[in-house]
Amino acid sequence: MTRIIQLESPISLEKLAGQLQAEFRGDPEFKIQSVANLEHADSGSLSFFSGKRFLSDLQTTEAGVVILSKENSLLFPGNSIYSENPYATFSQAVGIMKVEEEPIPKRDQSAIIDDSAVIADNATIGAGVIIEAGVVIGEQVLIGNGSSIHRGVEIARSCRIGANVVIGRGVTLGERCKIEPGAVLGATGFGYTHLDEEWLPIPQLGSVIIGKNVDIGANSTIDRGTLGDTVIEDGVKIDNQVHIGHNVHIGAHTILAGCSAVAGSVKIGNRCRLGGRVGILDNLEITDDVHIAATSVVTRSIAEPGMYSSVVPAQSVAKWRRNIGRIRNLDRWAVKIEKKLKQEHKED
Amino acid sequence: MTRIIQLESPISLEKLAGQLQAEFRGDPEFKIQSVANLEHADSGSLSFFSGKRFLSDLQTTEAGVVILSKENSLLFPGNSIYSENPYATFSQAVGIMKVEEEPIPKRDQSAIIDDSAVIADNATIGAGVIIEAGVVIGEQVLIGNGSSIHRGVEIARSCRIGANVVIGRGVTLGERCKIEPGAVLGATGFGYTHLDEEWLPIPQLGSVIIGKNVDIGANSTIDRGTLGDTVIEDGVKIDNQVHIGHNVHIGAHTILAGCSAVAGSVKIGNRCRLGGRVGILDNLEITDDVHIAATSVVTRSIAEPGMYSSVVPAQSVAKWRRNIGRIRNLDRWAVKIEKKLKQEHKED
Amino acid sequence: MTRIIQLESPISLEKLAGQLQAEFRGDPEFKIQSVANLEHADSGSLSFFSGKRFLSDLQTTEAGVVILSKENSLLFPGNSIYSENPYATFSQAVGIMKVEEEPIPKRDQSAIIDDSAVIADNATIGAGVIIEAGVVIGEQVLIGNGSSIHRGVEIARSCRIGANVVIGRGVTLGERCKIEPGAVLGATGFGYTHLDEEWLPIPQLGSVIIGKNVDIGANSTIDRGTLGDTVIEDGVKIDNQVHIGHNVHIGAHTILAGCSAVAGSVKIGNRCRLGGRVGILDNLEITDDVHIAATSVVTRSIAEPGMYSSVVPAQSVAKWRRNIGRIRNLDRWAVKIEKKLKQEHKED
Repeated sequence: MTRIIQLESPISLEKLAGQLQAEFRGDPEFKIQSVANLEHADSGSLSFFSGKRFLSDLQTTEAGVVILSKENSLLFPGNSIYSENPYATFSQAVGIMKVEEEPIPKRDQSAIIDDSAVIADNATIGAGVIIEAGVVIGEQVLIGNGSSIHRGVEIARSCRIGANVVIGRGVTLGERCKIEPGAVLGATGFGYTHLDEEWLPIPQLGSVIIGKNVDIGANSTIDRGTLGDTVIEDGVKIDNQVHIGHNVHIGAHTILAGCSAVAGSVKIGNRCRLGGRVGILDNLEITDDVHIAATSVVTRSIAEPGMYSSVVPAQSVAKWRRNIGRIRNLDRWAVKIEKKLKQEHKED
Repeated sequence: MTRIIQLESPISLEKLAGQLQAEFRGDPEFKIQSVANLEHADSGSLSFFSGKRFLSDLQTTEAGVVILSKENSLLFPGNSIYSENPYATFSQAVGIMKVEEEPIPKRDQSAIIDDSAVIADNATIGAGVIIEAGVVIGEQVLIGNGSSIHRGVEIARSCRIGANVVIGRGVTLGERCKIEPGAVLGATGFGYTHLDEEWLPIPQLGSVIIGKNVDIGANSTIDRGTLGDTVIEDGVKIDNQVHIGHNVHIGAHTILAGCSAVAGSVKIGNRCRLGGRVGILDNLEITDDVHIAATSVVTRSIAEPGMYSSVVPAQSVAKWRRNIGRIRNLDRWAVKIEKKLKQEHKED
Repeated sequence: MTRIIQLESPISLEKLAGQLQAEFRGDPEFKIQSVANLEHADSGSLSFFSGKRFLSDLQTTEAGVVILSKENSLLFPGNSIYSENPYATFSQAVGIMKVEEEPIPKRDQSAIIDDSAVIADNATIGAGVIIEAGVVIGEQVLIGNGSSIHRGVEIARSCRIGANVVIGRGVTLGERCKIEPGAVLGATGFGYTHLDEEWLPIPQLGSVIIGKNVDIGANSTIDRGTLGDTVIEDGVKIDNQVHIGHNVHIGAHTILAGCSAVAGSVKIGNRCRLGGRVGILDNLEITDDVHIAATSVVTRSIAEPGMYSSVVPAQSVAKWRRNIGRIRNLDRWAVKIEKKLKQEHKED
């Protein structure tokens, strides 16, 4: 159980608050030894209070330091760091304290690297990695074990590519992208046209262009474009098992939760939020700042920012069977009701 | 066509029934040569009768031995093994007869194994496998070709890991787990908080803890926890392309069919059954013994055991278009109808 | 941006039209230098006009040659190739002009190939590929980096297998199949039966048999059969992240868009079309020429060709909340309305 995560090197409250540029209260010399949530923290832990839901945890926590908003400062008597967004400040603190071990740059001798590839000296290339001709890999990039980086791919500085990732011919990634294991970027798009009785594949000659600071989840797939490119703009966050079709364009800072699927040639604006397993049919355009509830299906373009949904929540089977039975004959029944009402009106 | 599967070494009816601790009827010396279903069996085959649906197959089968319940014994005149659960007994028989070839333990010379890893002598390590520092691998474990086992992973005895699986840092598996190809255990969970215009990643420092006898399907993904762990208890069975978010807890002997998705911090009880492509929204709690119909979406916690559904079955497009047209305006129409009925009542 | 794709070797209009067996108009000596869509084409580009939607692009295009139907010939004054199906003819032209680079056949020295495997001399085996005992690989086959081809697999001529693909024991592929990266063919099917408190796995002894000219998308999974086989017939096209359960049979020239899921033992006919994320419950039979709208769920067998749907389109949350509130109580409300109408009728 990794509920309390120990730091490699403890840090004083004063020093951490300084680096966070945050106000603090309590013993400046207090040494933070670990991080944990309120429930599991011990007397050396840094923790955070992010909402009323955790009020009882706050009242009983043993945490040595709690990050919380100033207006909540009376709720916890101990060492505190003030922040209007405690979860964000905690996340930044974890970064500062280097909780997650950095790899020592090295090029595993089992990696198979084409002579024409250009790889920064301080990049880390995992075991069994395959890097083809013309690839360019920037400073501090990490390529995970068993990944396959195809001809002409360009990966900018500080990207982290997980294990067993496939990056297809010519795909480009901006700096600080994070690609989780098993993701496939630049597979052939799915396009066919009928010729006689058979399906003739439409050439998929475009590429995938990924901006800066984009995250892509495990086993997600992003197809290359047909003649143009598939484009993912800066700061987009994509969860696991998401499917992005050919020639899709996703605007900056849009976020797609797990198992979402975006069909070919869809254009999604900036700062949109797609819940888990959202589906968007092909060739639609979604404007900026659209939020779509998990499992909803978008069948028409959306020109107005706001929240959209078609979630159908589960009920007890007994109840749902009766409801879905009605739904399956809803129009017929509604017509009957309307007719009846009309007749009665006439009878009146 | 592999419809009749030949045994490496035939077995007599008496010996097999003895090992199954089951009653039998017929020639004790009869040699079972193969296994097959009733339809395809030949005179040397062991088969089974599991329900009325297969009655006509039973009447015409050429099978040499049929496993069936005693109450059905009159339906088949030949050699029989009696069981109240013929499919289970057949499955056990297949295990006893070693139909599926066991690998000869070996460590492929192409595997890249860190010196600090502790691997049982009779474990089988496939070609191109990568095993990082501090990994512990138990007796009779099989690691498939090209899999990547990261720092500190522990895999207990008799686990079978398929090809191209990724098991992330520190993940632990209990004995007898079976992980299908392409699965990713311990990818980074999907958590972000807003900071200014951008998404700030929340640290994902927890791990994944998997119990005994858990099966996980091809290309499924199970994310590590944020501060606590993602936990899969004993005997859980997970199909292909299932997504399990960070900090999820799945109780013992629960089964999740293909393409299901469980969002972050969900707690599912023991002995639940999720049909294919079920979705469960984040932070919900599902009690024990809940069955959820395939493709349903769970939007609230479920405190009562039983069956739940929100399946919307396909109809002919002509019919569905009229029904969905009603649904999209259902509230407005219902208000109108209610108003009309009220008016008429007044008019009366 | 790869919006204009240059040819390795230019080709004259006359020569290309001859190879396409198509009528043309204009300068027979005109040299085609590149391909592009109408919007991005330059004066050396071959392009195509496939429908009214692109009429304004046609009027302003700089393309050197346009493929279009004869009846539209007046819409473009320049060099033209006539075709009743311009997109298909363009796709064929791209094939003729060898826009996509052919690999030079070679066997990467890092590949691990069992001595008993039989591999055509002009097959290409990528880096880190693992080929087990008894595998047969035909002429001009390409196996991508890091793929794992298990015992007894047979891959017929001109197949192209992407990177990090897993093809399980005994699976067979007909000629000209294309398997995208990360796909898993022949994983264990998902079948269990209850025994006491636990789930007992049902043996999955069958295989996967794939016909000619089948395409399978990135990270898709096709499970092996239990006793019979899973069968994908000629010309089937399967998109990314599609899941095909054990013992499924898919008829010739059927097409399945991204994220579709077909549960165990389903039989789908010839020339069917499944939109994205269609779900089909287990043991159903779908006849030939059935089209199912994206995201629909099939819960009963379909015996009549035609179009089927259960799509629920997203609305603004405010509107949808009211509608779904009605749906969740639809039967109760409908009963109330019917009762009221009856009463009023009696009162009349």
